[in-house]
Amino acid sequence: MQLGFAMLCAGSVRAKNAMNIMLTNVVDAVVGSISYYLFGFAFAFGDTSNPFIGTNFFALKDIPNNSFDYSFFLYQWAFAIAVAGITSGSIAERTQFSAYLVFSFFLTGFVYPVVVHWVWSSSGWLSPSSSSPLFASGAIDFAGSGVVHMVGAVAGLWGSLIEGPRVGRFDAFGNPMPMRGHNATLVVLGTFLLWFGWFGFNPGSFDKILVAYPSTTNQGNWTAIGRTAVTTTLAGSTAGIVTLFGRRLLVGHWDALDVCNGLLGGFVAITSGCSVVEPWAAIVCGFFAAWVLIALNILAVKLNFDDPLEATQLHGGCGAWGLIFTGLFAKEEFVVQAYDAGETGVVRPYGLFMGGGWGLLGCQVIEVLVIVCWVSATMGPIFYALHRLMILRISAEEEIAGVDISSHGGYAYSSHQDVDQPRFYADYMRMQDQS
Amino acid sequence: MQLGFAMLCAGSVRAKNAMNIMLTNVVDAVVGSISYYLFGFAFAFGDTSNPFIGTNFFALKDIPNNSFDYSFFLYQWAFAIAVAGITSGSIAERTQFSAYLVFSFFLTGFVYPVVVHWVWSSSGWLSPSSSSPLFASGAIDFAGSGVVHMVGAVAGLWGSLIEGPRVGRFDAFGNPMPMRGHNATLVVLGTFLLWFGWFGFNPGSFDKILVAYPSTTNQGNWTAIGRTAVTTTLAGSTAGIVTLFGRRLLVGHWDALDVCNGLLGGFVAITSGCSVVEPWAAIVCGFFAAWVLIALNILAVKLNFDDPLEATQLHGGCGAWGLIFTGLFAKEEFVVQAYDAGETGVVRPYGLFMGGGWGLLGCQVIEVLVIVCWVSATMGPIFYALHRLMILRISAEEEIAGVDISSHGGYAYSSHQDVDQPRFYADYMRMQDQS
Amino acid sequence: MQLGFAMLCAGSVRAKNAMNIMLTNVVDAVVGSISYYLFGFAFAFGDTSNPFIGTNFFALKDIPNNSFDYSFFLYQWAFAIAVAGITSGSIAERTQFSAYLVFSFFLTGFVYPVVVHWVWSSSGWLSPSSSSPLFASGAIDFAGSGVVHMVGAVAGLWGSLIEGPRVGRFDAFGNPMPMRGHNATLVVLGTFLLWFGWFGFNPGSFDKILVAYPSTTNQGNWTAIGRTAVTTTLAGSTAGIVTLFGRRLLVGHWDALDVCNGLLGGFVAITSGCSVVEPWAAIVCGFFAAWVLIALNILAVKLNFDDPLEATQLHGGCGAWGLIFTGLFAKEEFVVQAYDAGETGVVRPYGLFMGGGWGLLGCQVIEVLVIVCWVSATMGPIFYALHRLMILRISAEEEIAGVDISSHGGYAYSSHQDVDQPRFYADYMRMQDQS
Repeated sequence: MQLGFAMLCAGSVRAKNAMNIMLTNVVDAVVGSISYYLFGFAFAFGDTSNPFIGTNFFALKDIPNNSFDYSFFLYQWAFAIAVAGITSGSIAERTQFSAYLVFSFFLTGFVYPVVVHWVWSSSGWLSPSSSSPLFASGAIDFAGSGVVHMVGAVAGLWGSLIEGPRVGRFDAFGNPMPMRGHNATLVVLGTFLLWFGWFGFNPGSFDKILVAYPSTTNQGNWTAIGRTAVTTTLAGSTAGIVTLFGRRLLVGHWDALDVCNGLLGGFVAITSGCSVVEPWAAIVCGFFAAWVLIALNILAVKLNFDDPLEATQLHGGCGAWGLIFTGLFAKEEFVVQAYDAGETGVVRPYGLFMGGGWGLLGCQVIEVLVIVCWVSATMGPIFYALHRLMILRISAEEEIAGVDISSHGGYAYSSHQDVDQPRFYADYMRMQDQS
Repeated sequence: MQLGFAMLCAGSVRAKNAMNIMLTNVVDAVVGSISYYLFGFAFAFGDTSNPFIGTNFFALKDIPNNSFDYSFFLYQWAFAIAVAGITSGSIAERTQFSAYLVFSFFLTGFVYPVVVHWVWSSSGWLSPSSSSPLFASGAIDFAGSGVVHMVGAVAGLWGSLIEGPRVGRFDAFGNPMPMRGHNATLVVLGTFLLWFGWFGFNPGSFDKILVAYPSTTNQGNWTAIGRTAVTTTLAGSTAGIVTLFGRRLLVGHWDALDVCNGLLGGFVAITSGCSVVEPWAAIVCGFFAAWVLIALNILAVKLNFDDPLEATQLHGGCGAWGLIFTGLFAKEEFVVQAYDAGETGVVRPYGLFMGGGWGLLGCQVIEVLVIVCWVSATMGPIFYALHRLMILRISAEEEIAGVDISSHGGYAYSSHQDVDQPRFYADYMRMQDQS
Repeated sequence: MQLGFAMLCAGSVRAKNAMNIMLTNVVDAVVGSISYYLFGFAFAFGDTSNPFIGTNFFALKDIPNNSFDYSFFLYQWAFAIAVAGITSGSIAERTQFSAYLVFSFFLTGFVYPVVVHWVWSSSGWLSPSSSSPLFASGAIDFAGSGVVHMVGAVAGLWGSLIEGPRVGRFDAFGNPMPMRGHNATLVVLGTFLLWFGWFGFNPGSFDKILVAYPSTTNQGNWTAIGRTAVTTTLAGSTAGIVTLFGRRLLVGHWDALDVCNGLLGGFVAITSGCSVVEPWAAIVCGFFAAWVLIALNILAVKLNFDDPLEATQLHGGCGAWGLIFTGLFAKEEFVVQAYDAGETGVVRPYGLFMGGGWGLLGCQVIEVLVIVCWVSATMGPIFYALHRLMILRISAEEEIAGVDISSHGGYAYSSHQDVDQPRFYADYMRMQDQS
């Protein structure tokens, strides 16, 4: 039953994106559902002997007929459709409708599930519960700083790079032009939904662990669930405040939208280690996540990189920081509690700064690197192929019309949608021309 | 505790409607709550000997004092207020405020509960767990394709027919004029909320079953809950994609709003059989639900029938298809699991295409017919009486003023509401006249 | 796990406020989280021997390492950030950004937790489960009519009084000018979210009780949870309908927004006694809550008191009524069930009208009085100091600009926010000047 509500939370996560990047996200979710059902789940959890990719359970065929696996499928599905949502953010406002159909089919059905198999299935080569884990440790990515957020962000990075910035985002001299979201209320609503959605993702991941790592006993897990929720809250809140004050220092005025992005950055960062760090470490995590986000945003402007939702910076940068952070601050007691004790008689590695050696940190760094490489090697060509086939970016005319409308509060960016509100704003524009 | 969260989901279901058909829905819910508390619950579940209507537990009087029944009341109440919400969609944009008070009082307090008694209470003549069920089977309507969705839709059909189309919906020659919703973002938000709300309705219905059919054991139900969520997701997603591509073929361009309606149509259809069909059958269910919806929408335009939310087509058409579908595809193993094994030694009928005979299909068809007849015989006269008393439809002047405002993004359709946004648009209209 | 979802509900509660009073609420929540983590929880539940204030567990230090306490912290944190949200409503549309930082830090970190310690901790002098409770009874404030709602409302009262009404709220002769909210849809959405959020707060409070009063056994509590949800629904619905018809009589036309405020008023009132009264008593509670709200709103206009969200009247007035109501209608059986039986052999006082004597009513009245005094004595000076330091109210120019924008549908009230929608409305204003 818990799973049903974890679903609800996952849905809320998407709601914010739906707000920002519009109707295309419904399509992502729908296409992703079918794709994940047919292929994705099989690639992710299909075979427990191959360390690189699963090979059975396509379309849930031959899945053991007990509820555990159905619920597990649903929970994993919620993660899967979130990934495409992150990518959609990066390529928003200038991408053709059919491109969404293609990329979300591949991302949700193949690219993402393979990473899941590596890190979360009990046979993955990078999994902490494999029978012979890498460096006797495996990577700890509890609820997906890397598996979910970095995968979505790297895919978005390539989509965004290949498409180029939106028309008008930078002037002829490469200076950024202001191009803000159209509706601050929706951003706030989305942030709150995500905040509490994260309580579903992070503490909810214990169910996932119990499935993927059957050797884990239930003992101590209820303690960990409570602690997970506390660390999540503290990391997000700290990052929100630090972003607020940090941007105040840099930009010179308060901007409450910074708090929203900071909150989300803190959540993304703590997602990896939320179950294995102390509350005080979560504050450290949030503090640096805020600066990572601020720095990457400055860098993005300098490089004339345009990601309308800052998804690459936020999910990619803070996600990578979160993985490193876990390698530094994971506490021995909690690692043993949440995962297995490791091979008999061998102490499992834990956070470097906590005295746990380099093994865990090494695995975390490797996870960052392989995710960047794998997603670049797969999604890069897909986006490039879409680009060459001329079905990636909308025409400049459509985009300018769209951007004109959008910068005045319109909701629909696709020229095919004929809702009334944009028409109203178009009328308004015409009036302005006449008067 | 689960029930409380099922409530949350139910609330989300209503949120979408609240968005679309405005403040009147708050009133529906409030009036419906009181009406269902005073009368509805009693008619639905009051007496376990009368097969047609319950006769005690008015105002929860003499209800056995244990939590089970209070929680059960709440869960049923969430279904009850959803029914009036469906009907409200059909009569939106042209109905007087007081008409909502009257119809939702009767619908929630009497018409709907009687159907519930027939199909869901353990003494109902059409109930699958009655001691001597019809055709040794009874109708399987797990979470209310018929009981909830068709009841609301048939009521809305009569309301909408008696009121006639909105001013300007069809021109003098009967050709439809474009009249789209005012805010696509809200539609997407509502769809996502409903998507995850359905996870509360469908899997949550197991609690209902456990109450209504005490002979059912808990064994196997957790399996069924997981499967229910999976079938729900797949039916909705399939219907969404099929509607998208189907309308692309018919109309010539992509319209992501079609995905939203398709999704909902798929959910409505699978609601009846979600617990007793295989995942692959859910895909079949969604596929045909999409075509039912497309065909009925074409028919509605041909007949100059105007339902602003397509509620009649969506909840009525897909709901009826869902009942038939269950009669065709219900799997023996799951039917026995979710309901009782039937009389000792007698094999319970199940889906016709699965080799289960005509018994179940017969009951499903009978449910469709009796719902259409009963709701027509009760709500038809009520709407007609309101019409004759001149308290059903707002004046043409009010409606035109409202429609003018609404087609420019205004939110309030009642002339009595004096919120600022419409006033702004009214100003804007005046400006346009001057310039 | 339940607690995670109670969080979700709490988040929904805030979502409505976020809609109405904008981005400042994100800041409230973030600052409040840190403040409550560092100080608030310690003051509230830190020491079980001091009846006035807790003195350990700062920053969760030395907290017993089991999940129960972490979950309990989270649940309490959700209540804590709701308090600052109520106050924010009262001072909306005219308050500086930095003032929010200061007041929410103090309110969430000190003023509110002290009240919690008095009433909800097992050592509080007014707690019903203290070893020697006041009048052998203690105050019954189940989910915080007083502790949460009145505390927020009294703080808001002082903030609002010291700031004075918004520019243009009353004309030179003290007559009120119409100044309605900008978006009825958001109000409805918020109301529905709150409705179902309350199902998290009220029934969810049983967990709190189980923690704070370990002597309570689990027996009977599931019954009480169901009843709690039913009383909450009935009180809210009744208050909504009564407000609707009452205002119809007084003002002469239907206004569905009245239903929203009435609903919320009914919820606030029943929050104190939801677990210890019969369903019929909940209807009485809602009936009078509606009239309290109507009367206080009339009084507020007469006194030229301006609270943009009616938060003082709604949360303060209905909250106080709720406490008194519990003193009158609490049923012996339920009081014993939800709380302890009291000292051995001594019958615990219960509702006056139910024959339970004056003990409970006395405690309830004392709770009302001490909350008014304590919050006035602490938050009053803080708001006054902010006022003297000139960091409370925005300049009249900013406010007029903001109010002009806001009365035309703009979302951002802070002059530092440069979102596009207000800019659009500003353009519109300029056009109007030209034409």
